[in-house]
Amino acid sequence: MTTNEKIQALRQQMSKAKVDYYIVNTADPHQSEYLSEHFKERAWLTGFTGSAGTALVSKDQALVWADGRYFIQAAHQIEGSEFKLMKMATPGYPSLNEWLRQEVKAGEVVGLNEVSYSQRNFEFLAQLLAPQEASVKALPSLIAPIWQDRPSMPEAKIFAHDLKFTGQEAKEKIARVREQMQADHAQANIVVGLDDIAWLYNYRGGDVANNPVALAFALITLDKAYLFIDEKKLSLEMNKIFSEQGITVLPYEQVSSVISQLKIDKIVLDKRLVNTKLYQAIPRETKILDKPSYVMQNKACLNPVELENQKKAYVRDSAAVTRYLFWLKREVEAGEVNEWSAAEKLHEFRSQGEHFLDESFTSISAYGPNAAMMHYAPTAEKFSKMEAKSFYLIDSGGQYYDGTTDITRTIALGSLTEEEKTDFTLTLKSHINLARAIFLAGSTGTQLDILAREPLWRHFMDYKCGTGHGVGYVLGVHEGPQRFSTAPSSVALKEGMHITIEPGVYKEGKHGIRLENDYVVAYAGENPPDRFLKLEVMSYVPLDNEAILPELLSDEEIEWLNDYHRAVLEKLMPYMTTDAEKSDLEAACRPLSK
Amino acid sequence: MTTNEKIQALRQQMSKAKVDYYIVNTADPHQSEYLSEHFKERAWLTGFTGSAGTALVSKDQALVWADGRYFIQAAHQIEGSEFKLMKMATPGYPSLNEWLRQEVKAGEVVGLNEVSYSQRNFEFLAQLLAPQEASVKALPSLIAPIWQDRPSMPEAKIFAHDLKFTGQEAKEKIARVREQMQADHAQANIVVGLDDIAWLYNYRGGDVANNPVALAFALITLDKAYLFIDEKKLSLEMNKIFSEQGITVLPYEQVSSVISQLKIDKIVLDKRLVNTKLYQAIPRETKILDKPSYVMQNKACLNPVELENQKKAYVRDSAAVTRYLFWLKREVEAGEVNEWSAAEKLHEFRSQGEHFLDESFTSISAYGPNAAMMHYAPTAEKFSKMEAKSFYLIDSGGQYYDGTTDITRTIALGSLTEEEKTDFTLTLKSHINLARAIFLAGSTGTQLDILAREPLWRHFMDYKCGTGHGVGYVLGVHEGPQRFSTAPSSVALKEGMHITIEPGVYKEGKHGIRLENDYVVAYAGENPPDRFLKLEVMSYVPLDNEAILPELLSDEEIEWLNDYHRAVLEKLMPYMTTDAEKSDLEAACRPLSK
Repeated sequence: MTTNEKIQALRQQMSKAKVDYYIVNTADPHQSEYLSEHFKERAWLTGFTGSAGTALVSKDQALVWADGRYFIQAAHQIEGSEFKLMKMATPGYPSLNEWLRQEVKAGEVVGLNEVSYSQRNFEFLAQLLAPQEASVKALPSLIAPIWQDRPSMPEAKIFAHDLKFTGQEAKEKIARVREQMQADHAQANIVVGLDDIAWLYNYRGGDVANNPVALAFALITLDKAYLFIDEKKLSLEMNKIFSEQGITVLPYEQVSSVISQLKIDKIVLDKRLVNTKLYQAIPRETKILDKPSYVMQNKACLNPVELENQKKAYVRDSAAVTRYLFWLKREVEAGEVNEWSAAEKLHEFRSQGEHFLDESFTSISAYGPNAAMMHYAPTAEKFSKMEAKSFYLIDSGGQYYDGTTDITRTIALGSLTEEEKTDFTLTLKSHINLARAIFLAGSTGTQLDILAREPLWRHFMDYKCGTGHGVGYVLGVHEGPQRFSTAPSSVALKEGMHITIEPGVYKEGKHGIRLENDYVVAYAGENPPDRFLKLEVMSYVPLDNEAILPELLSDEEIEWLNDYHRAVLEKLMPYMTTDAEKSDLEAACRPLSK
Repeated sequence: MTTNEKIQALRQQMSKAKVDYYIVNTADPHQSEYLSEHFKERAWLTGFTGSAGTALVSKDQALVWADGRYFIQAAHQIEGSEFKLMKMATPGYPSLNEWLRQEVKAGEVVGLNEVSYSQRNFEFLAQLLAPQEASVKALPSLIAPIWQDRPSMPEAKIFAHDLKFTGQEAKEKIARVREQMQADHAQANIVVGLDDIAWLYNYRGGDVANNPVALAFALITLDKAYLFIDEKKLSLEMNKIFSEQGITVLPYEQVSSVISQLKIDKIVLDKRLVNTKLYQAIPRETKILDKPSYVMQNKACLNPVELENQKKAYVRDSAAVTRYLFWLKREVEAGEVNEWSAAEKLHEFRSQGEHFLDESFTSISAYGPNAAMMHYAPTAEKFSKMEAKSFYLIDSGGQYYDGTTDITRTIALGSLTEEEKTDFTLTLKSHINLARAIFLAGSTGTQLDILAREPLWRHFMDYKCGTGHGVGYVLGVHEGPQRFSTAPSSVALKEGMHITIEPGVYKEGKHGIRLENDYVVAYAGENPPDRFLKLEVMSYVPLDNEAILPELLSDEEIEWLNDYHRAVLEKLMPYMTTDAEKSDLEAACRPLSK
């Protein structure tokens, strides 16, 4: 089918369903960051394959909204079709909401997919359109009947995450949720996030690339703990484990009907995650308490066993990245290497390590000006060749049985300009200034964020993204609620939270520099009644001394850097396999002075 | 009347008014920070004279809530009466709201003064008590009929604030408000804040100590600009000026009746400021738009004329404070000086300068451990004598025709301990770290606050107050909306905003150190589309070199300090009147090095 044929087929479905507009968003029934192929309805309909975007079709219009990362790609991919590109956050282009406010008339109906819209977003849209007396209708997908070669639902087997990795049995985690429910006078809790469910029930899956989760819902009541999942994904062994932990397994599709039969006074859920179909299945008389997921809160602070494992995973991952960077510097000098082949080589180094599962996301392997595009990734077909000059940026991570990692290094492949060295050193200052912070317990990532930005602002440079994000444990590489960002947040940083620091300098057409380490929030000291926290580093990969101008660093910054390299040397030396690697490590970790 | 007689008399009024509880808060009809004597109902009733606190009387109870600053004073002042002290933020003592939730029963009525409660607080209380089916009633003061020797309403004359100080005529300021009203589709705006009204209509008054304001309301409609004020306060000249500016003067008491006769569709007001009596006067059919005062926003950024004046006022004020500190150091060595006599002397130095009106607040003149109490102030009866050792802290400010100032210095009166020097130097680091910030336009004081705190947090010390506050222009010494604080705020810092930086170290029984300068937000540079701002210093008083340990400062901090002292020397030298002062200034401004 061509795109225009798809649009016509959708319009027929819309006419049958009696809707005047139909929105196709980019989401699965769990509001996951990464979607399995089965749920990519917007990409199928429009031909535009970016990771974010929203399409809208009416009787006579077909529009697709995309953000700045994708203007060029989207325009190219929808070319020749009826779809018109709507550039997000661009003057002259209304947002989807503004468009709906302008165009939708009294009595008209806007349709959307009942499982890909969260209840929160559905309510927002209904409120938005109420003043113009238009309505919003959540429906079974109108794409489903017309998408003929649709990929099937993923069917990867799940596996148990052993107690030596989790530190806590599923039944204890469930008991804690029940305590939280009871404190809120509720008798049930719907758990929707795939990461939350995998963590709660101590399993991992393979349904989504780079994210060891499985499509599932969970429902906790005072006496039952349900897991709704395709039973084909469970081995006999897994069934036995769940049974021992008091977990009742039912088919994925049954979640709505089980919820509709609940006979309870109050249910807790997170409207940002629960889809409209699930929400509407809740019996009318049941009170609903909308609050951030208990499990998300519970898993945000690593327990001692998780933390010990996570630290070990970081050391192994750091060794792989460090060996890769040594290899790369030699290879670039020697001859033929490009962004794509290099990323493949990094995979090889990682997969040699213990407990390796997968990458935690598609590596950003970017040479020279490509690195100025924050979300650049080479493909097997499209990549740049590297030369023995300027910067190479590699942002990558691993999934291991004992942890999830995320690290970025920018390295000199040869001689650098003064501007390149200055920007690298300022990025380093920015990183260190946040990394060495001591802060009052209760402080938020919003408060701390400026410690990283100010050293760059001082030189009239800002990076247009957050400073750092939370990381899951053998789960999503982006997991909240903690983060470093200018966006207001009331989430306090707590001991055991895993968070990245990744400031950068991005100069279009020139270079991109990002230096990312991962940290765990740790106790620093106290002065009763005040307690103070710090960030304890977990990543150990040398920061490229060849790109640093020591005269731009303060004494404290040089001390931080030398301490860091001393720790890198100590942690990584056992993993160096050749004399060349050993001497490279020693050279990379030599102390700097002004 | 004794306190208990007052309580009995109030209970009779309560019985007549059919209320079961009566709240006496600390406020005037404008929610002013400082009250004129006429409005101090809570102090009259309870005998407790602190600047904050709330009393509640029921048939069989009499309670007064006070905060930590006043536990000792309040307990002493209510001793022997029926009043019981309720310690705020102290375990075992419910807050007023918690107490009401626990004690008030269905059908009961809580009364309060209709002019001292803001509509926002009234609505909050009504919502709080709704679940227990109790009600809140805003009434004419029940204290008024029983307070026999009540001070009359203040009657100070107002005076015109000339164009050379204001930079903008009142009619232009009024026109701007009308534009803002029209953008909000409103036809009227009630202005309640005494500072807002004085600024809007370009006058100043003398009704409140330290604050050159007059009791008044303003109402702007599309064709009228009303000033409700006691006409005795106006000279013929002032009447003429108001008439030229299109301002209609009416008696203070007529504001409610004029509002009740408005025939408009929509009115704008700030519920945090409008009292319940005014609010209830608004005709039922009028739509109400509740938003922060336009005038507060408009006056927050000084115009070029205001800024130029404000800077001049700071230089003169700095000269007075500097000469005072030089005098004090000599006087302490010579013999007899105490906190109270010293503060009197500071007044003398200030009042010698041009354009002096008043102090901007009661000076905090605190020696040794007294300075650890953040809000300490000596009186003519109770003060400490100073000795030639340890620290003296002076936090003071002036009101001038051309500006309002606020500055704190802590100085060594003789030899210091290592701990005193360390704490002083860390406070200085904290101050400098925020003072030298460069920040992206749009940043808030909440984001910047940590730049001052982190250098102290690093040593496990925190100050339990904001880092800085806005200052009015020939108005309140505390004026928003800008501030530096950990409390969340969405108010962006903008060019022309006047703000203090005043971190401190407070060690009970030992010493208190605070270093406060005032700054104006200024343009720093740009990197399109990003604009960057900085803080430009306006206060020029030496920072006591004798208390600094240079080895604790970074190179950048020493550079900032030496640059600052170079500027102090240049600005103040013309104001030094004797050779001794001149050589003191030179010594105080000598450059430091590690």
